[in-house]
Amino acid sequence: MTYCVALRLDRGLVFMSDTRTNAGLDNISTFRKMYSWSDGEACAVTLLAAGNLATTQSVVSHLEERMKAPADRAPSILSMPSMFQVARMIGNLLKDVIAEHAETGQRADAAFNATLIVGGQIRGSEPRLFLIYPEGNFIEAGEDTPWFQIGEVKYGRPILVRTFRPEMTFSEAAKLLYVSFDSTIKANLSVGLPLDMQLYENGSFRPTDIRRIEADDETYLAISEMWSEALTNAFAHLPEVETEA
Amino acid sequence: MTYCVALRLDRGLVFMSDTRTNAGLDNISTFRKMYSWSDGEACAVTLLAAGNLATTQSVVSHLEERMKAPADRAPSILSMPSMFQVARMIGNLLKDVIAEHAETGQRADAAFNATLIVGGQIRGSEPRLFLIYPEGNFIEAGEDTPWFQIGEVKYGRPILVRTFRPEMTFSEAAKLLYVSFDSTIKANLSVGLPLDMQLYENGSFRPTDIRRIEADDETYLAISEMWSEALTNAFAHLPEVETEA
Repeated sequence: MTYCVALRLDRGLVFMSDTRTNAGLDNISTFRKMYSWSDGEACAVTLLAAGNLATTQSVVSHLEERMKAPADRAPSILSMPSMFQVARMIGNLLKDVIAEHAETGQRADAAFNATLIVGGQIRGSEPRLFLIYPEGNFIEAGEDTPWFQIGEVKYGRPILVRTFRPEMTFSEAAKLLYVSFDSTIKANLSVGLPLDMQLYENGSFRPTDIRRIEADDETYLAISEMWSEALTNAFAHLPEVETEA
Repeated sequence: MTYCVALRLDRGLVFMSDTRTNAGLDNISTFRKMYSWSDGEACAVTLLAAGNLATTQSVVSHLEERMKAPADRAPSILSMPSMFQVARMIGNLLKDVIAEHAETGQRADAAFNATLIVGGQIRGSEPRLFLIYPEGNFIEAGEDTPWFQIGEVKYGRPILVRTFRPEMTFSEAAKLLYVSFDSTIKANLSVGLPLDMQLYENGSFRPTDIRRIEADDETYLAISEMWSEALTNAFAHLPEVETEA
């Protein structure tokens, strides 16, 4: 499994992903699920991936090859005129990669599906955030729900629903994601540390604060512990339920 | 969907279930998912059901028919020598009901599967709690995890994991279930009020405090609101995450 979240704040975008992949419970590895491309001037795009690792790595490799060989006929992310076109291109690529292996007689237990979050900004328009389905189609984060989750979304969702506000600072948003990931990691073995985080400030065309949160990260551990205590305290102070026995 | 929980406390058992059933999002109804049988002297059994409603109602009807016609060759719950035999009988019945309809050429979108929780006490031994799978086999709640959930288990699980202690009073346990159900109902439309609750005190051979918690229940609403506030407050008081932007 996997857990990835992207938030669209008023001041920019925030991305976080875990790094645990597994082929069965007895085969667990650490792989990056966050990728980003930017030219520092007119284009910055970040991608979060959940699903079959062969599929998502293949999508990313295709995207990177296109950038390394400019003469290649395939278009590069960095030359796209809009985020909509970026999402369209990545969606088509994802669909093609899945179809390529599905057609060769799939014998795996699970499908080769993957779901992606793609966010970023192209000069001339606002930052945008998309969720891309295995079929290649996609939806955009709007004002009502300016964030997306993929992978194991349930455990970390309640705190997002209760606490997220678009006007949050990057620091508050990071704290919110620390809590959301902590709840998920505590509940599902197949989501695990370290975490990757990245901030994108509107109009910067370059991600800032690219960090990896390791299992011994002091802030992460402090938040995890204090959150646990706070929940226990809050529970103790709720009104009593009267019972007959 | 459905959400049911049963807790095994030192002093007895606590059961809670929601009442929402749906055949698609456009066909939602209210049905009881908690059933109990007791003779007040030597046997008390409560059953919680998640899954296909036709299957679970058929299981319950079979069980009740056996009690209404004592001359019937099929054994009644109230005549079973142990909770293990109760779980075995219900497991076999469940498996048979599922098999009966699966074999007649199933054309439904979903399988006719169901999962049950069965708990209670037969004179001569301690109360026991079982989770019965659609295949008819079952597991028993032990000391490490003396509770079971069925249906939409994820949203309401973290608070159970963090807060449950076997030495809780019935009142505390009820409060815990109010919070666990509130988190689930807030997150999943297919779990809904009213809720059914039931307490069973060790050695009483009769469930006490059988109650239905309606959508306007004052204690439920107060707990739901205070829990929401407490989480928001707790979040605000967590340590800051330093960010570059």
